[in-house]
Amino acid sequence: MTLTLADIRAAHTRIRDRIHRTPVMSSAALNEKAGAQLFFKCENLQKIGAFKARGATNAVALLSDEQAQRGVVTHSSGNHAAALARAARLRGIPAYIVMPSNSPQAKLASVLRYGAEVIQCEPTLASREKTAKDVAERTGATFIHPYNDERVMAGQGTTAIELLEDVPDLTDVLCPVGGGGLISGVSVAVKSINPEIRVLGVEPKGADDAAQSLAAGRIIPCTSPNTIADGLRSSLGELTFEQIQLHVDGIVTVSETEILHAMRAIWEVMKIIVEPSGAVAYGALVDGQLDLPGRRIGIILTGGNLDLDKLPWTQSTHTQSIQT
Amino acid sequence: MTLTLADIRAAHTRIRDRIHRTPVMSSAALNEKAGAQLFFKCENLQKIGAFKARGATNAVALLSDEQAQRGVVTHSSGNHAAALARAARLRGIPAYIVMPSNSPQAKLASVLRYGAEVIQCEPTLASREKTAKDVAERTGATFIHPYNDERVMAGQGTTAIELLEDVPDLTDVLCPVGGGGLISGVSVAVKSINPEIRVLGVEPKGADDAAQSLAAGRIIPCTSPNTIADGLRSSLGELTFEQIQLHVDGIVTVSETEILHAMRAIWEVMKIIVEPSGAVAYGALVDGQLDLPGRRIGIILTGGNLDLDKLPWTQSTHTQSIQT
Repeated sequence: MTLTLADIRAAHTRIRDRIHRTPVMSSAALNEKAGAQLFFKCENLQKIGAFKARGATNAVALLSDEQAQRGVVTHSSGNHAAALARAARLRGIPAYIVMPSNSPQAKLASVLRYGAEVIQCEPTLASREKTAKDVAERTGATFIHPYNDERVMAGQGTTAIELLEDVPDLTDVLCPVGGGGLISGVSVAVKSINPEIRVLGVEPKGADDAAQSLAAGRIIPCTSPNTIADGLRSSLGELTFEQIQLHVDGIVTVSETEILHAMRAIWEVMKIIVEPSGAVAYGALVDGQLDLPGRRIGIILTGGNLDLDKLPWTQSTHTQSIQT
Repeated sequence: MTLTLADIRAAHTRIRDRIHRTPVMSSAALNEKAGAQLFFKCENLQKIGAFKARGATNAVALLSDEQAQRGVVTHSSGNHAAALARAARLRGIPAYIVMPSNSPQAKLASVLRYGAEVIQCEPTLASREKTAKDVAERTGATFIHPYNDERVMAGQGTTAIELLEDVPDLTDVLCPVGGGGLISGVSVAVKSINPEIRVLGVEPKGADDAAQSLAAGRIIPCTSPNTIADGLRSSLGELTFEQIQLHVDGIVTVSETEILHAMRAIWEVMKIIVEPSGAVAYGALVDGQLDLPGRRIGIILTGGNLDLDKLPWTQSTHTQSIQT
């Protein structure tokens, strides 16, 4: 079974009334700095503050009525949790979210706001998976993986449909890579619409499992991620790795300094809030690592959720952990 | 001579290719909190990060070729300085910006970036005015006042043209008041298009000269402003006061706490950066001072320029000066 452009277009028709059509923004100052035309797809301005609203909404919409009434379950401390809770509330069905006991209060609050039931677990992957499995068995709820799920991948791919509708004549698309759900959908959509557009994944050097996996030809898990980009610490899944192998032209890895420079430039110049993970794709350009003069580059800003009391440039505890 | 809708429409035709058509954003969460439909006109995403780009561009465009070649001059340490420098560069003419010697480096840098000539002066209004007058006499440059100028007022009013094109059926418009340039243009435009829409000015309690002036029937200068909203510390001008008397339905004053709550909510929920002055109009609603259930309220977010290293909620030096 392979993800197709038709799946992604169907997902878009299914979810478009339940998500924001996010703007594509550009900046004369950042264009000048890059010597290229940059088109930022602002998924930080998406519902729940991240593109994850797309995939979760599509997955929930695809459940049969019988499945739906038993609800959905996932384990996540991040944007997928809020996205699934919101999607379930829109359909009026239960959502069970397994969260590690050390999750930040802000993340917990955003899930509870959408009326989800939160089940706490130990902060290990084994405990998260076991707890989610137990909940699914007890309730009959359908497990919705944050990325290794074709319904989710198709939903995330709708980002590229909108980007190419607004700016058809791109030469390149830069997309962050964590578990690979977004870049799977995006690369299928872009390459199906115009195979000449280059699709590059961008990931932190401190969580470069996609680059390693592509080089090795098999999934190399991300065992000890070391990056401020907390949304990109996951390992690839089997389904996402397959799509990345098929459709992605290459992976660029960026330093923590590049991530912070990118985040800061977007805040200062574009006046929009991106989280560190959300700024990673622009990190490939900000200090000139990629030099693509005259090209027309789509850049996906993936999310804007972070603790405004602990910004990386005002917190010595954060900056100390940054490797350059 | 009175500002008319025709002036503002002509200004829009004149400047529209040189400014951003800024988005009107809305948020389900902020609507729910207010019990009303809120439409945020995002001038923080405007060129140079503030609506001031509109008025300066219009004023420069209206110069004759003979006037233009001698350049333009103003005194400002804020957004008008950058806006005028940019407008002059677009027309290829000199800009002379008189700035107090204590202006922040960031403001200086943004003016220099557009190729303006910066003339330093003592940090007093008298010195600013004298220095600007000297420069005008020496160079023949045309003085462009930041707000008490009908060309500037007409340009700022184009904000309302766009807002009402996007959301014609508003019931109220909330607009910050500093020197009154924006609300002059906005109120003329709104009342001319639909006199049933209520136009309310919003200003800090610590710089409430518009409320005082309207009550007294004459301009009461803002002699000792005490507010974090640095863009709203000016006094009204004669031209702006006249328009405000004619067209504005009332002035709401907001506390420093309301300003900070508004700013923080916009950052957190809408994921966009507004400066304190830029958040003031939403300050009238954020803590329930205005309770307008079911209404459709346009809110002008005026700018997004501030020092990201000194945010009010991370800097004890700032929060200490806040009065509640």
